[in-house]
Amino acid sequence: MADAAMEARGRRRRGRGEADSAAPAIRPQPRLPFAPVPAVSADELEAIHEASLTILEEIGMDFLHEGARDLLREAGAEVEAGSPRVRIPRQLVEAQIGLAPRSFTLHARNPARNLAIGGDAVAFCAVASAPNVADRDGGRRPGNRTDYQNLLRLGQSLDAVHLWGGYPVEPADVHASVRHLDALFDMLTLSDKAIHAYSLGRERNLDAIEMIRIARGIDDATLEREPSVFTIINSSSPLRLDGPMLEGVIQMARRNQVVVLTPFTLAGAMAPVTIAGAVAQQNAEALAGLVVAQLTRPGSPFVYGGFTSNVDMKSGAPAFGTPEYMKACLLGGQLARRYGLPYRSSNANAANTVDAQAAYESVFSLWGAIMGGVNLLMHGAGWMEGGLQASFEKMVLDADLLDMVAEFLRPVKVDPEELALSAMREVGPGGHFFGCAHTQSRYRTAFFAPMISDWRNYESWREAGAPAAYDTANRLYKQRLAAYEPPPMDPAIREELEAFVARRKAEGGAPTDY
Amino acid sequence: MADAAMEARGRRRRGRGEADSAAPAIRPQPRLPFAPVPAVSADELEAIHEASLTILEEIGMDFLHEGARDLLREAGAEVEAGSPRVRIPRQLVEAQIGLAPRSFTLHARNPARNLAIGGDAVAFCAVASAPNVADRDGGRRPGNRTDYQNLLRLGQSLDAVHLWGGYPVEPADVHASVRHLDALFDMLTLSDKAIHAYSLGRERNLDAIEMIRIARGIDDATLEREPSVFTIINSSSPLRLDGPMLEGVIQMARRNQVVVLTPFTLAGAMAPVTIAGAVAQQNAEALAGLVVAQLTRPGSPFVYGGFTSNVDMKSGAPAFGTPEYMKACLLGGQLARRYGLPYRSSNANAANTVDAQAAYESVFSLWGAIMGGVNLLMHGAGWMEGGLQASFEKMVLDADLLDMVAEFLRPVKVDPEELALSAMREVGPGGHFFGCAHTQSRYRTAFFAPMISDWRNYESWREAGAPAAYDTANRLYKQRLAAYEPPPMDPAIREELEAFVARRKAEGGAPTDY
Repeated sequence: MADAAMEARGRRRRGRGEADSAAPAIRPQPRLPFAPVPAVSADELEAIHEASLTILEEIGMDFLHEGARDLLREAGAEVEAGSPRVRIPRQLVEAQIGLAPRSFTLHARNPARNLAIGGDAVAFCAVASAPNVADRDGGRRPGNRTDYQNLLRLGQSLDAVHLWGGYPVEPADVHASVRHLDALFDMLTLSDKAIHAYSLGRERNLDAIEMIRIARGIDDATLEREPSVFTIINSSSPLRLDGPMLEGVIQMARRNQVVVLTPFTLAGAMAPVTIAGAVAQQNAEALAGLVVAQLTRPGSPFVYGGFTSNVDMKSGAPAFGTPEYMKACLLGGQLARRYGLPYRSSNANAANTVDAQAAYESVFSLWGAIMGGVNLLMHGAGWMEGGLQASFEKMVLDADLLDMVAEFLRPVKVDPEELALSAMREVGPGGHFFGCAHTQSRYRTAFFAPMISDWRNYESWREAGAPAAYDTANRLYKQRLAAYEPPPMDPAIREELEAFVARRKAEGGAPTDY
Repeated sequence: MADAAMEARGRRRRGRGEADSAAPAIRPQPRLPFAPVPAVSADELEAIHEASLTILEEIGMDFLHEGARDLLREAGAEVEAGSPRVRIPRQLVEAQIGLAPRSFTLHARNPARNLAIGGDAVAFCAVASAPNVADRDGGRRPGNRTDYQNLLRLGQSLDAVHLWGGYPVEPADVHASVRHLDALFDMLTLSDKAIHAYSLGRERNLDAIEMIRIARGIDDATLEREPSVFTIINSSSPLRLDGPMLEGVIQMARRNQVVVLTPFTLAGAMAPVTIAGAVAQQNAEALAGLVVAQLTRPGSPFVYGGFTSNVDMKSGAPAFGTPEYMKACLLGGQLARRYGLPYRSSNANAANTVDAQAAYESVFSLWGAIMGGVNLLMHGAGWMEGGLQASFEKMVLDADLLDMVAEFLRPVKVDPEELALSAMREVGPGGHFFGCAHTQSRYRTAFFAPMISDWRNYESWREAGAPAAYDTANRLYKQRLAAYEPPPMDPAIREELEAFVARRKAEGGAPTDY
């Protein structure tokens, strides 16, 4: 009922939006204006590379997918009889490096939302895959479709969110067999930004590819030329790729869609307790995914993912935004560049509430990712609790942080107008610049205007109820949801999407025993 | 009364500390392991440099100090008759560049606390010069000696605080004529870290120099060889240096003590509304200070300070930790390196409470400062409200941030032990690293252990009362104050300091009409 009412309201709004408002200009993607910062010397980088090749060649990895093992065997890898263990000769790995593009365009259903992935371009995803959702009014609750849709609406309204990295929260009240159909339908209708497909069995990959094809209104050949959906492939560290993940690599690469391979190498748990060791393992696992993707289709788009962090020494709990996380971010970027691959990192934190910890761990994560040369930033807006919670307030706060990062990355302009000698001549020693022409013609747009930061003086701020950033974010997310307008969509395309979902549901959806 | 009681308790503790506890090892200063990040191209940097020389040569600056004007006139500057306006030929400026040392040691009364200033070394100061102080229990209140002393105790207890950048809060209940005597006495007895002297008239500079000489137990000649106190010189932007500030430059440089010249060039208010313009003016004002310092004593230690930020477009209030602030941090560092000078920046924010805003603005400031190659970070721990408030909780939280930054700067080690191939061989695909020997021998010290971050799972955290970072910082600062032990001091030195303070008080202290 609530869903239907919201949907109806959405339709009315969409109608209005189409009729009377010109689409606001979409800001260009941020670009890195400086060289990324290296974590280790060139020799040390080679030592890590060589260690990863040794891992793949001597220790080997478990590939829990017969088709992937066949592919590797045919290419010259040594597959252990009656075992998932595969050892990949270093030459076979080296031969796959350099085939995938250094950068490519990820297409969205709205072409104005297409994104460059790689080079100096940066793209920010929303939070993805949280099992719980929270806002201050409703508290923390398991993921459900209503919150899922509202997070889509909120993310669509935030310019800083460039694309979806998965479901911002799991709509767990939709049956698993058809969840991907409803969830992707929501994502493609409530938003016009680029999308992600979960690799949870062949059918889900193929359904997602078909739904973005329909949403874009293109044919199969165009889709295959134009990557339009990406999948995150996590290894089951240490040194293991499971069946659905390998199936995802193969299905996506076969159609020239994007594979983002991200080992989750938590130092001290699923990886060695040292940064160099954990990253060497991360690198081995990422290269293993690269080999499968490039053997499936040489030149298919592939993103190198890094997600090495450490555990809390006291409890074994994962920690994020730590100094170790930052160093691993820099090192991961250095390795991705060595292989000529776009680099994925994350805006991560392990805080339970939207407090100073949530903010500093997030900004430390951003610091590591950005200075490491990130191209695809996962979990950019809304991630909390090490990924267990999607937060409405944090999504708004993070969008503000991402906008600040984007403004930081905009180069300083140096020319006579900007150097402003004439203004200094006019104002002179001891004067004030508020009134001069140089200021008056620029001050309205001269500086970044944040959503959250409260710069009132203490007295005014206290009179206004002493709002903390959490309060302001709470107020703002509700304002934005109330003002949400769905992006326009050709009714024929919407009908085709609806028909596809209805047909696939009638067929029983996708198996749940992947 | 309270002060006296506290002092008595302090003495007892100091006694104990001397008797039965070995001094804990002082961690080495952080060093930048990578090249700082440039904000502009080499050509653009030269354009800014040239613009600054043009400002000094053609517009000129007001020097509200006859001695400084005489010095400049004798060196070839053009002093306007009957006016403070001085125009400095570019050759005169260029001739002073390269005379000051690229790096030097700032001596503390405890030699183990001596600091390298310059090169790749980083030193963190505590908050300085706030008129108000706050903690959650006592609220916000005007500065006073009790809070001043407690902030000294807290800062002394925090390893991340390397030195004092001034009074953490103004002890405004001590009469201005003798405040510097009591305040420096407290600083030199409650702490053994390096100190700052305010330039508020000749007597205060000279008293500070004498007090650190006594505290170090050295003679005048040694003091003059070994810089032991620094002063912050702020220009009265735009393009003006006032009398006490210029007197401070001259008095400190004459004795080979450290001048840190920091224009406060708020873009859109005391400086042009553009970053390039505001920094060109910052640079002109910093170079003007360099000229006076080097004309006074060629080769005297001088630090290039940058503090360019922007105003809030809505209110005109100063803003910090903004994207503009970050860019100005990078650019300031680039200019300091061009002149071969150590670089000063700040950990700034404009938040009114210790919330997410306080944290993200601070970490953005640290990001800009660190990647800009900061050598002397002012206001590192405890600054709030754009400098109007020193916060006990923020001091602890910031110390944690600074420790995280220091750990981030510690290079990743890459060698066979760290690469951990043997551990990966032992654990193998699908295993777990917790139990292996490589982890067991390292996990206790493998990762940075923060003071504040709460990494418990949501349920445990909620059962524990759902503490936010502010709550944890509040608890920790009180624990640290309760556990405070004053650093040892030779009783003869203490008596000499007491006698000096008593004599100078009897003489009436220092004039208050500076």
